[in-house]
Amino acid sequence: MSYLINRRDLDFLLYELLDAERLCRLPQFAQHDRATFEQVIETAEQLAESQFLTHAAEADQHEPHFDGSAVSMLPQVKTALDAFIAAGFLSAAFPVEDGGLGLPYTITAAANALFTAANAGTAGYPFLTAAAANLLRVHGSDTQKLRYMRPMLAGRFFGTMCLSEPQAGSSLADIRTRAIPQADGSYHLVGNKMWISGGEHELSDNIVHLVLARIEGAPAGTKGISLFIVPKFRLDANGDPAARNGVRLAGLNHKMGFRGTTNCALNFGETEPAIGELVGRANEGLACMFHMMNEARIGVGTGATMMGYAGYRYSLDYAKTRLQGRLASNKDPASKPVAIIQHSDVRRMLLAQKSYVEGALALCLYGATLVDELEAAEQESDKESLRLLLDILTPIIKAWPSEWCLEANKLAIQILGGYGYTRDYPVERLYRDNRLNPIHEGTNGIQALDLLGRKVTMKNGAAFRLLLTTMQSTVKAAGATPELAEYAGALAAAITLAANTTQTLAGAALKGQVDLFLANAAHYLEMLGGIVIAWMWLRQAQVAQLALAGAAGTDMDFYQGKLSACRYFFRYELPKCEGHAKLLMQLDDTTLTIPEGSF
Amino acid sequence: MSYLINRRDLDFLLYELLDAERLCRLPQFAQHDRATFEQVIETAEQLAESQFLTHAAEADQHEPHFDGSAVSMLPQVKTALDAFIAAGFLSAAFPVEDGGLGLPYTITAAANALFTAANAGTAGYPFLTAAAANLLRVHGSDTQKLRYMRPMLAGRFFGTMCLSEPQAGSSLADIRTRAIPQADGSYHLVGNKMWISGGEHELSDNIVHLVLARIEGAPAGTKGISLFIVPKFRLDANGDPAARNGVRLAGLNHKMGFRGTTNCALNFGETEPAIGELVGRANEGLACMFHMMNEARIGVGTGATMMGYAGYRYSLDYAKTRLQGRLASNKDPASKPVAIIQHSDVRRMLLAQKSYVEGALALCLYGATLVDELEAAEQESDKESLRLLLDILTPIIKAWPSEWCLEANKLAIQILGGYGYTRDYPVERLYRDNRLNPIHEGTNGIQALDLLGRKVTMKNGAAFRLLLTTMQSTVKAAGATPELAEYAGALAAAITLAANTTQTLAGAALKGQVDLFLANAAHYLEMLGGIVIAWMWLRQAQVAQLALAGAAGTDMDFYQGKLSACRYFFRYELPKCEGHAKLLMQLDDTTLTIPEGSF
Repeated sequence: MSYLINRRDLDFLLYELLDAERLCRLPQFAQHDRATFEQVIETAEQLAESQFLTHAAEADQHEPHFDGSAVSMLPQVKTALDAFIAAGFLSAAFPVEDGGLGLPYTITAAANALFTAANAGTAGYPFLTAAAANLLRVHGSDTQKLRYMRPMLAGRFFGTMCLSEPQAGSSLADIRTRAIPQADGSYHLVGNKMWISGGEHELSDNIVHLVLARIEGAPAGTKGISLFIVPKFRLDANGDPAARNGVRLAGLNHKMGFRGTTNCALNFGETEPAIGELVGRANEGLACMFHMMNEARIGVGTGATMMGYAGYRYSLDYAKTRLQGRLASNKDPASKPVAIIQHSDVRRMLLAQKSYVEGALALCLYGATLVDELEAAEQESDKESLRLLLDILTPIIKAWPSEWCLEANKLAIQILGGYGYTRDYPVERLYRDNRLNPIHEGTNGIQALDLLGRKVTMKNGAAFRLLLTTMQSTVKAAGATPELAEYAGALAAAITLAANTTQTLAGAALKGQVDLFLANAAHYLEMLGGIVIAWMWLRQAQVAQLALAGAAGTDMDFYQGKLSACRYFFRYELPKCEGHAKLLMQLDDTTLTIPEGSF
Repeated sequence: MSYLINRRDLDFLLYELLDAERLCRLPQFAQHDRATFEQVIETAEQLAESQFLTHAAEADQHEPHFDGSAVSMLPQVKTALDAFIAAGFLSAAFPVEDGGLGLPYTITAAANALFTAANAGTAGYPFLTAAAANLLRVHGSDTQKLRYMRPMLAGRFFGTMCLSEPQAGSSLADIRTRAIPQADGSYHLVGNKMWISGGEHELSDNIVHLVLARIEGAPAGTKGISLFIVPKFRLDANGDPAARNGVRLAGLNHKMGFRGTTNCALNFGETEPAIGELVGRANEGLACMFHMMNEARIGVGTGATMMGYAGYRYSLDYAKTRLQGRLASNKDPASKPVAIIQHSDVRRMLLAQKSYVEGALALCLYGATLVDELEAAEQESDKESLRLLLDILTPIIKAWPSEWCLEANKLAIQILGGYGYTRDYPVERLYRDNRLNPIHEGTNGIQALDLLGRKVTMKNGAAFRLLLTTMQSTVKAAGATPELAEYAGALAAAITLAANTTQTLAGAALKGQVDLFLANAAHYLEMLGGIVIAWMWLRQAQVAQLALAGAAGTDMDFYQGKLSACRYFFRYELPKCEGHAKLLMQLDDTTLTIPEGSF
């Protein structure tokens, strides 16, 4: 069995749950059909297994090394990336006129998911490059697209996003990197950037850094931030890399996991000019960057999900083959040991993993379809609805999988026991890799503030209301099926709870109690996230229940599994939202009132 | 500030909460007083900081290495252990007549806790040695005590516990190592042992393996297991190490964390005889081993707690000094950034850690006082009560801290953000180290079965009832204090919930539905564990509330912190027990009914 994913499940999510084929009816995807999509996924799976998975453990043991002048790493990384680029994956989601394959984001997100499951460290480089190239596609000038985006999509140049600084991680308002205007219209950048993934390596002819900085004299805070291209090598008139630019690696960060992707402290303009060019308009850099944020955050959520998924698959296979112990009801010590999948606590840990990773993947791919639909929508009212749904779901898509699919990895280790704790098995590596996901691309604390403080309240609660009514339509449809009535009822009650909780919180906000309103934002995200995943499970159960009647053989098992996981989620996980709601309704101020000296 | 522990808190727990001074009134501890105890803790803290903490990160980076003939490791490990032994810590809890210091277990547990907080890998060797020596103290013959236990207590020999085998981790009934009786009364052992901590090294003159094996012809299952001493070097007539015995290192396991302690696959009698001697009576090996289990499991719980505690302290210090962002209510981007401890989500993560680690430490030390009291008790009725309480609390003491203080480590990383994810800071190492604790010394799944399937039901529920009435007496006393009435009421309700849940489950057991009875044992442990920790918080709050009136300065802050953490635990954590109880009351069979092919 493949450890990366259950392909039957991926097909179920794409075609039975989300009807990805309908994307082919949109004008920009009209050249594709389901056969193309399946070929893409098939190729991705083969490449991920044959080129990425094969060096995942070794890359973890031998992380990139900086000798003071260059960064070296396992040669298999470049081999894998060359194959990835040659197969067209780097530019797959880009329009054909930009040199891409014009595939829906939904399909490339699913394909990329397989590479993350196999080897997140190696997959990081092209993912970052595609994200940076996409930013230039939307905000770059024609010249910038030609000189930077095109070589990035061809895999000749790689890209980075340089936001954080050593003194300002989550707080972009406080970045200090300066951009000094030059007579020729260019800028000299001066400052230090931190946590820059892919910030240095020898994998590509050039590295295109997209850098947030302040033009001298710009307003304080986020309204004075601009976006710049600062390449490692300046381009000559032909667009070829020429003179070295003044961006230098100060040092590599040595991480607990995700070790294959270099993570860098970069100095700009320390000893030589770091020459950059402005992207978009001055002081609008953060808006440009945030435009890409939804997809970047869906990417993190999907990555977290797939690390959990791979651990689930591995521990499932282990549980089926490892013989140990007997059922509690069997007192005969001379009887043969059973496969540990027969022990209820192992089954609990498998069902928990299954419900987290398959529920999360459904949500991530659903989010991806919203991106495609938004890109294709022609009516402004459709656009608005899609944008609202995407906006409110994005912090959940980023944060929920990165909490709970990490928990899945923890359970996978537990199923393997002592073996799971050793580096001879992949589950401990997946756990270490996944621990990054609650931190980067906006910590989960920041996601919680974004959700409650911005997305829920924006436009008088329009996004929140739309999410509730969208979920309610599933409740209504599922409630008619007797087998699903229990879950439909539970989801309906949870939606009411979320509405009431939100009303109470909004009351505090209206009274100006801003700190109290946001004090338990993390619990709000947990609550709403759990409800949204329950909704995804009810939708999956609907499809499975309907299909079960006509199913046979392994398909029957498969659909039954969806129903069992739905039941698990509704009985074991969704009830947690009640505790969160109670706490939130009380407007509890415990965290605000404890004196600093009392910790 | 010390990262290992808040000494004010340790003193509070030992003297204000648990009245450790009263132990000096017991005959065997009459030679001690509080001053002695404080000196022991003081020495432990200094030694832990100066000799153990100093090489913790380096030992993690450079784990022990086996070149095929010998195991090498950092020289600082031996230096630290020599100092530890010279200061008397290895034998501190042993009676004076055995060469120990005759200190209460409570005090040595507290002292040992500091070494774990500093460097669990190095501390592992003497802890294992003391546990093995203690087993010989109780079950060994006089000759065995003289020849093996005494040199162990002197630190000349180290010890191990050899239980698990590659095919039998949790299932001791299935161990296969054979013991073949010899004409001279000795045994030749033949078999493979796995996960043996401290199984090979060059730190001591000898290694005394305590090995579970089957004498040829013994009954199947756990009733045919005997205990043997198998030394690395056989002793000559003078008790000095002489000829090499046939126990050989097959290989070191390479772990995610806890890397300083060698973890070994050992072969017995593969190419040369592994000569052993029986400890206690034939076929009673498991009973001998289990006699030591309570203390070993309290040791794991305390270790898990202290790894969490060290992470809490480190992230607290970081949160006080790291400046970033502004309060949500402050919209002025030109204002100065605040220390992140002012952000409510950081405070939430600190309070959660505080409530987990201080609550868990209170429970572990309370368990330790039960061990001391049981050892000293003269009336059989007292003995019986103490034994019951200790028996039912032990699986909770092992499992709850190893789940929730690991969660504390996860939160500590989150507070440090990207920095926390790098190996330049200790929090990621503590998280990796702590991940072992839910696995070893009986996985937490095994603890859950032990709690519900054995401890709760034994003697017609006597231990369970005693635990409830003991907790109820706290409820009654605390209920009289208006400031604590909310918590007393909540604990009373939770106790009732636990009683009802247990009754429902017992009903299923009585009907012979054994698998259904135990299907959600993990949730039962979570539920009862949370209630017990809430009880510990209410007890701490009682003491703090009383002391607050007469307190001044930092003491006032300290007691206020106890009250705030109590409030946090009761409002944010205890309510989770309702969800567990609901699930358990339903006798939910989701995990039992899903077909194996449906995962």
